Amino acid sequence: MLLRNLYQPPTARGRLPLCRIWRTVVQVTIDWPQLRAAAADVAGRAYAPYSRLRVGAAGLTGDGRVIYGCNVENASFGLTLCAECGLVSALHALPAVRPGPPEGAAPAAPGAEPARLVAVAVVAGDGAPLLPCGRCRQLLLEAGGPELLVDAPGGPVPLAELLPASFGGADLSVRRDADPAGSS
Amino acid sequence: MLLRNLYQPPTARGRLPLCRIWRTVVQVTIDWPQLRAAAADVAGRAYAPYSRLRVGAAGLTGDGRVIYGCNVENASFGLTLCAECGLVSALHALPAVRPGPPEGAAPAAPGAEPARLVAVAVVAGDGAPLLPCGRCRQLLLEAGGPELLVDAPGGPVPLAELLPASFGGADLSVRRDADPAGSS
Amino acid sequence: MLLRNLYQPPTARGRLPLCRIWRTVVQVTIDWPQLRAAAADVAGRAYAPYSRLRVGAAGLTGDGRVIYGCNVENASFGLTLCAECGLVSALHALPAVRPGPPEGAAPAAPGAEPARLVAVAVVAGDGAPLLPCGRCRQLLLEAGGPELLVDAPGGPVPLAELLPASFGGADLSVRRDADPAGSS
Amino acid sequence: MLLRNLYQPPTARGRLPLCRIWRTVVQVTIDWPQLRAAAADVAGRAYAPYSRLRVGAAGLTGDGRVIYGCNVENASFGLTLCAECGLVSALHALPAVRPGPPEGAAPAAPGAEPARLVAVAVVAGDGAPLLPCGRCRQLLLEAGGPELLVDAPGGPVPLAELLPASFGGADLSVRRDADPAGSS
Repeated sequence: MLLRNLYQPPTARGRLPLCRIWRTVVQVTIDWPQLRAAAADVAGRAYAPYSRLRVGAAGLTGDGRVIYGCNVENASFGLTLCAECGLVSALHALPAVRPGPPEGAAPAAPGAEPARLVAVAVVAGDGAPLLPCGRCRQLLLEAGGPELLVDAPGGPVPLAELLPASFGGADLSVRRDADPAGSS
Repeated sequence: MLLRNLYQPPTARGRLPLCRIWRTVVQVTIDWPQLRAAAADVAGRAYAPYSRLRVGAAGLTGDGRVIYGCNVENASFGLTLCAECGLVSALHALPAVRPGPPEGAAPAAPGAEPARLVAVAVVAGDGAPLLPCGRCRQLLLEAGGPELLVDAPGGPVPLAELLPASFGGADLSVRRDADPAGSS
Repeated sequence: MLLRNLYQPPTARGRLPLCRIWRTVVQVTIDWPQLRAAAADVAGRAYAPYSRLRVGAAGLTGDGRVIYGCNVENASFGLTLCAECGLVSALHALPAVRPGPPEGAAPAAPGAEPARLVAVAVVAGDGAPLLPCGRCRQLLLEAGGPELLVDAPGGPVPLAELLPASFGGADLSVRRDADPAGSS
Repeated sequence: MLLRNLYQPPTARGRLPLCRIWRTVVQVTIDWPQLRAAAADVAGRAYAPYSRLRVGAAGLTGDGRVIYGCNVENASFGLTLCAECGLVSALHALPAVRPGPPEGAAPAAPGAEPARLVAVAVVAGDGAPLLPCGRCRQLLLEAGGPELLVDAPGGPVPLAELLPASFGGADLSVRRDADPAGSS
């Protein structure tokens, strides 16, 4: 797969020249060391009094922003928000700064669909990558699609490899319509 | 209760002169119309393709920041993040801008505990207040305590009234220690 | 409120003569000591290696069943299932045993709506009642409505007192329809 | 991998002769058609008024029980419980019926660790398999380990293939101890 060959080691600046993102051809440069450093930084602001495992996440969006999240725990353990939850929330909630398209890229169409995640680094308090839990892989899938690149100890991997045969929005509608009781 | 008398109607600028926040006396002004407008604005960026109920949340922190969140839904419905989830994530993840204490307030101690939420407005896509679901009341409790003020149709109410007899971190440790098997 | 007068102390057998449950008049007897004992029993089967706070829940359904749940934790703290999650799952998943209506009660209509929760006891590993967290109050609301009785140290209280001004299914549809973008 | 060769097509009775489950050698027979039929049956009891996608799950435990779960939705979408949530809750909450070890198997040690999931079938309202979302893969991992067999359209697959490079309890403790701030 061509995309596979475009992976960049986290110690070098990766360039993803013609990545198809959200039905738009854009050109973004993935600076993995920067992403990982940003994730490590936000891990320092994690609220993790119960697990004491601090986690930070940093993501690059298709429109060139770097966004952040850290884990926020809760006395009712099940309400804990992982770092990637915050990241996905920020993807939508933070107003996109649109300073014009990057040099050489096609401009975003007016009324375009929301920005998507292109690359994500998740780091624990020890500064090394941490692979997302299952929930967060599913959240990242909806935020970035199967081609989203995820930082890993051996170099970035596409999300499709971390959540193969995934359940998504298409399954929801197709399978509901196939259910005699559901489609009524 | 004195605090009760300090509530400000959402159509006027409220002033909470000596609110005890996170063991520090600070002086913050709650601008309810501004908070509600901010919540309505971020509701417009909600990702709600499944419920089509767009929700935005805006919060004022003890150190004077206004932070945001919107709901972010997922094909696996149970992974949906409410607007308040994003708000609570932002409380911790966004680096606090500390331009010095507000005029007349005691300066923050070095190594101070993280900022807390002081006031929250949640608004649906129709522009009117929406009261948080149970999960989000619990999240807000840990982020702002029972004295956190929550915007409501009839004016702000303290969170303690929306989640009475709440479960919290103290229960976790006390009840665990009271369990012969748990404290081992 | 009349319902209030019908509360039974947890040390005596309560009788709720004409409680309106899910649009059907039924007659169920709430045996609070039995419910609390059942909750304590299932708390002993909790999977709580991370918090070490073991919790059990037992509920009485409108069709006279007693169902159970315990907390099931997860290494990814946010995926933890509270005891009440298991209880609500069991309400629907366990096949109703329908041995005929209780003496004096109207028979269930054919094709009736699913059974509802009527009374719930939640107990920690120390054997004493534990009030549900915010998420679980919301789950119980949809499973039993505001009139659901919840065991508490001072005697049962209706859920409406633990989750006042609650968000529910009606809000979802009404507020969506009030949103120009949402109702399209 | 030897385990791979033991997969049974869902249209035949599979036999997993010497599957190592939870540090104990047991002998269980996986009746995939029975599991799938049980999942389809419980899908009919799903509470899915919002998505209208009904889902059922059935699992075989290491001690030979078949347990169930269906999805239970909530007006606050993010509180929705998937079918696998109910399954995992039932694994722990339902009292194990221990009628003695299956013929030819080693008896369970007294004080043995809780039963584990060995095989799981998840089915939508249309009667066909549905692969778990990311959250549920993580829940199943803790309930059954990477060797848990999951029903899929092309035949059962081990969970390790659906959630590779997974985060688990060992990561939690190891990574926390590697964090100077976390291990204090």
